[in-house]
Amino acid sequence: MFIAPSKDMLFNIEHISGWSDIVALPAYSAFDLEDATAVLEEFGRFCAEVIAPLNVSGDITGARYDKGRVTMPDGFDDAYTSFVEMGWQSLHHPEDYGGQGLPRSVGAAATEMLNSANMSFALCPLLTDGAIEALSKAGSDTQKDTYLAKLVSGEWSGTMNLTEPQAGSDLARVNSKAVRQNDGTYQITGTKIFITYGEHDMSKNTIHLVLARTPDAPAGVKGISLFLVPKFMVNGDGSLGNRNAVTCVSIEHKLGVKASPTAVLEFEGATGFLIGDENSGLSYMFDMMNAARFAVGLQGVAIAERAYQQALSFAKERVQSAPVDGSTRDAVAIVNHPDVRRLLARMQVLTEGGRALAAYAAGWQDLARYAASPEQRDEAAAASEFLTPLVKGYCTENGVEVASLGVQVHGGMGFIEETGAAQHYRDARILPIYEGTTAIQANDLLGRKTLRDGGVTAMKMANRIKETERQLAAGSPVAQAVGIRLSVARKAFQSVVKHFVSTAKDTPNAAYGGAVPYLMLAGNLMSGWQLARSLLAAETALAAGKDVEFMTAKIGSARFYADHVLCDVDAQRSRILEGADSLLSVAL
Amino acid sequence: MFIAPSKDMLFNIEHISGWSDIVALPAYSAFDLEDATAVLEEFGRFCAEVIAPLNVSGDITGARYDKGRVTMPDGFDDAYTSFVEMGWQSLHHPEDYGGQGLPRSVGAAATEMLNSANMSFALCPLLTDGAIEALSKAGSDTQKDTYLAKLVSGEWSGTMNLTEPQAGSDLARVNSKAVRQNDGTYQITGTKIFITYGEHDMSKNTIHLVLARTPDAPAGVKGISLFLVPKFMVNGDGSLGNRNAVTCVSIEHKLGVKASPTAVLEFEGATGFLIGDENSGLSYMFDMMNAARFAVGLQGVAIAERAYQQALSFAKERVQSAPVDGSTRDAVAIVNHPDVRRLLARMQVLTEGGRALAAYAAGWQDLARYAASPEQRDEAAAASEFLTPLVKGYCTENGVEVASLGVQVHGGMGFIEETGAAQHYRDARILPIYEGTTAIQANDLLGRKTLRDGGVTAMKMANRIKETERQLAAGSPVAQAVGIRLSVARKAFQSVVKHFVSTAKDTPNAAYGGAVPYLMLAGNLMSGWQLARSLLAAETALAAGKDVEFMTAKIGSARFYADHVLCDVDAQRSRILEGADSLLSVAL
Repeated sequence: MFIAPSKDMLFNIEHISGWSDIVALPAYSAFDLEDATAVLEEFGRFCAEVIAPLNVSGDITGARYDKGRVTMPDGFDDAYTSFVEMGWQSLHHPEDYGGQGLPRSVGAAATEMLNSANMSFALCPLLTDGAIEALSKAGSDTQKDTYLAKLVSGEWSGTMNLTEPQAGSDLARVNSKAVRQNDGTYQITGTKIFITYGEHDMSKNTIHLVLARTPDAPAGVKGISLFLVPKFMVNGDGSLGNRNAVTCVSIEHKLGVKASPTAVLEFEGATGFLIGDENSGLSYMFDMMNAARFAVGLQGVAIAERAYQQALSFAKERVQSAPVDGSTRDAVAIVNHPDVRRLLARMQVLTEGGRALAAYAAGWQDLARYAASPEQRDEAAAASEFLTPLVKGYCTENGVEVASLGVQVHGGMGFIEETGAAQHYRDARILPIYEGTTAIQANDLLGRKTLRDGGVTAMKMANRIKETERQLAAGSPVAQAVGIRLSVARKAFQSVVKHFVSTAKDTPNAAYGGAVPYLMLAGNLMSGWQLARSLLAAETALAAGKDVEFMTAKIGSARFYADHVLCDVDAQRSRILEGADSLLSVAL
Repeated sequence: MFIAPSKDMLFNIEHISGWSDIVALPAYSAFDLEDATAVLEEFGRFCAEVIAPLNVSGDITGARYDKGRVTMPDGFDDAYTSFVEMGWQSLHHPEDYGGQGLPRSVGAAATEMLNSANMSFALCPLLTDGAIEALSKAGSDTQKDTYLAKLVSGEWSGTMNLTEPQAGSDLARVNSKAVRQNDGTYQITGTKIFITYGEHDMSKNTIHLVLARTPDAPAGVKGISLFLVPKFMVNGDGSLGNRNAVTCVSIEHKLGVKASPTAVLEFEGATGFLIGDENSGLSYMFDMMNAARFAVGLQGVAIAERAYQQALSFAKERVQSAPVDGSTRDAVAIVNHPDVRRLLARMQVLTEGGRALAAYAAGWQDLARYAASPEQRDEAAAASEFLTPLVKGYCTENGVEVASLGVQVHGGMGFIEETGAAQHYRDARILPIYEGTTAIQANDLLGRKTLRDGGVTAMKMANRIKETERQLAAGSPVAQAVGIRLSVARKAFQSVVKHFVSTAKDTPNAAYGGAVPYLMLAGNLMSGWQLARSLLAAETALAAGKDVEFMTAKIGSARFYADHVLCDVDAQRSRILEGADSLLSVAL
């Protein structure tokens, strides 16, 4: 059973994402918190009642391949049809093409819910979101008119075609070919692997966005163009025409997300349409990837939430062993044993911390898009771009850890597939890998988001944290204690940023060897900071007598996070500042 | 492909396990390092050539159940027959019953090799080892004469029957019944679950060791007796008689170790023989469990070694992306990218550190058994018993982490089952659970091994570490740097031990909430200490011009461990000393 955590999400939307600034934007002026509440509660019910029940059966059956066709597990087609009919794909997409135009901060919560319910199912809408993002930004008006409305409704789905057998994470080595035809279309030839929902029968058409090279393109990433390749050609009146020359030759046999078909696609002179300009494909793909990376970060929170709910419910029911404090000789529910409590508390705060971090990032995304002045938009974009690799990297690494702790809470039962905890452990494992591994996120964070502007954006974040520290210092004893931990962590972050800015140019291998520790340090700090902000908001609410149980729990989470998670930053700082020599000299 | 790391093992036997003290024992006076080398190299070849090739196919096929019978995957029967014929089961077992009487320190290395090759296969001999242990200590002469030689040879296999559906980790709730018959045997009735190799056809007979209660037994753990229940009754002449009334009613569908059948056994008035005295079953079972816990710790090292070898080999072959230092614009093998290096280095030192810790513990086991004076034996037993939960807890948690890092090194390929990295990730996950979860190990470490003697054994360990610190301080600059880190970690350990000794009685929930952080801190320290001792031995060898490449690598591992792993102890100390309030007050 899964219950969407809409209350925590709405708390974040109100107190973490900068809601008052968001609804002050003309684009969102029609929305208020009641709308967000209504949407998330209704979607939460849909996810719990329609999508979640297919999670286990989807894992057992898996997507099946036969002669170019993929059959989805029972129930997926119907669930997808309901999903589309109820308009859920369209939540945060532009109203011009039939979307509901909700803020990202609300859309992010919806994405998390769907992924908690069923990560395999949710991957289809997630990839469609990415295609909408890329087309909205770079597509021609004709392309938008032809494809966007159907993608926004979910009637058609989208895919991202980057990876090739010889080029995993390295887009410079992409060598699919695109040859311009007299009618202005391109013939696309090549093999793409790891294409999520590359072939399936839930949607009526699939719009592949494909990276390829024209014959005269320069080498490397500067010679990549982006093409739109529909599975079925679209006639002038919007009806579907012939099948395009793209074939699914197999799907992968994977550790997890087994109901999500991961296709090998063969493009054999398929008809493609250039998106934007030739040789500019990478920048369009980055728009799509950034949206997808953020969404994968949400998947990390989502799988953690699901694993936590399952483990907590088991721990409350499973009666085993008398308590260590001797208060009774009878066996008690294992949730009462101190270490089970520790495991569950860690699962809970990593989940809440990740959710709050994503909500904070989503707020910046809304401002980056619609803030009044270019300066405000630039500032918001810088913050949002700094946070994207943190959401992706930190939340997915934590998703794996939390899913693993969930197995541990179950003891031997956790290793039995029927219990369900093991599925989360298997499903979660792809998250720190796809849409760019944690190392790739870390290189992005260090190179593009920290070094490129000399640490300015990073230091601005540190200054924002200092402001929260000041508020904590003026608060309750608990707030003060959390503030002290936050301050220590923030100073570690600053010392690391300074170190990178002053040394990375001369010793790049040393610097990039510290990139993942930097990402984990920064993700830890930024999550802990959001929970500290939650604590302040919860204390204010408590003072007004509001929602005592929930607000007390938020304070407890912030405190546990500060004492048990934030304390890891010192070791990360030490690895970065003092560990490069031993890293570069160790024999492998 | 798997290559047994016999060189590192022999280094540990010579420099870490206290080899000169061990071969000075009369029991082992016939052995020397050349014998150990010959045995481990030959067994390493056997594991690599005969056992390892069945690991993947065993995972794919799994053990299969049909009407009470279990069929092993193809090749397992033949491999087991070879294993028995070549005498490998008997390596470290008593010569009185046909064993080869090798020291534990050598036997531990062999156990690790076999588990690296194929954990599912290795579980059968591992459980037989436990049965031999219990019978050797507590069995009657008749029982020993009837069963031991066949178990030592491996012709028959052994099992441990503890868990029941209503009693997972809580042996106080065992309620299988044992009713004494007029002929002195007992009728055993009850259901046991999670019985590793509880039913299979590789060995000719299976000797179940079963916990049950006689009708008048006191409640709780003081009323448990241990019984020997053969699958086939054994006639007076040693030949096999009728099948006993114990039936396998199903086997589990598991996340990993799929070729190892995990049985539900139904005892329906089966004939059992009391081992030792009535109501003393728990202490006999503890002997067996301690041997098994140590062996499971070795499984943690073993799966880490296997995952590391696979990831390293992939990283050396996989060419992807130009280096960050701009030294070439060509793509290079990913092992050259700083973060892949970091992942592999961490995998390597956690593996080497765990192996060294286990070798150190095995040395104490040898002394505990055969040292000349009772004082020496007691001291060795206290050290060995202190280290057992560390080997089990720390090495298995690390086994899971290393297997997960192994997936990460492979990128997207790691998520595809055919690559093989995912199997290690699945197989490893049982290790921190069975034979007592990490929390149970931690409670043992804190309660029985630390608090019971007021911290004396723990502080003795700290004093031994100080001696190593003194040697490091007198050594090379690298030795001195490692010594400083070791000293910081040792002091953290001491402060935590003092804290527990002074507070655990009054605030047991707070103390036991810090038990796993204490285990991880102590395991980290003790492993790092062994690698620091390795560094000293390697520097001495280097000074004599011996084996430059290997010894340089050992120094590099110790240094990386000190800079990148030991630095975690401070956060653990902080969780223990300052985190109890937030743990006990957090709302779940």
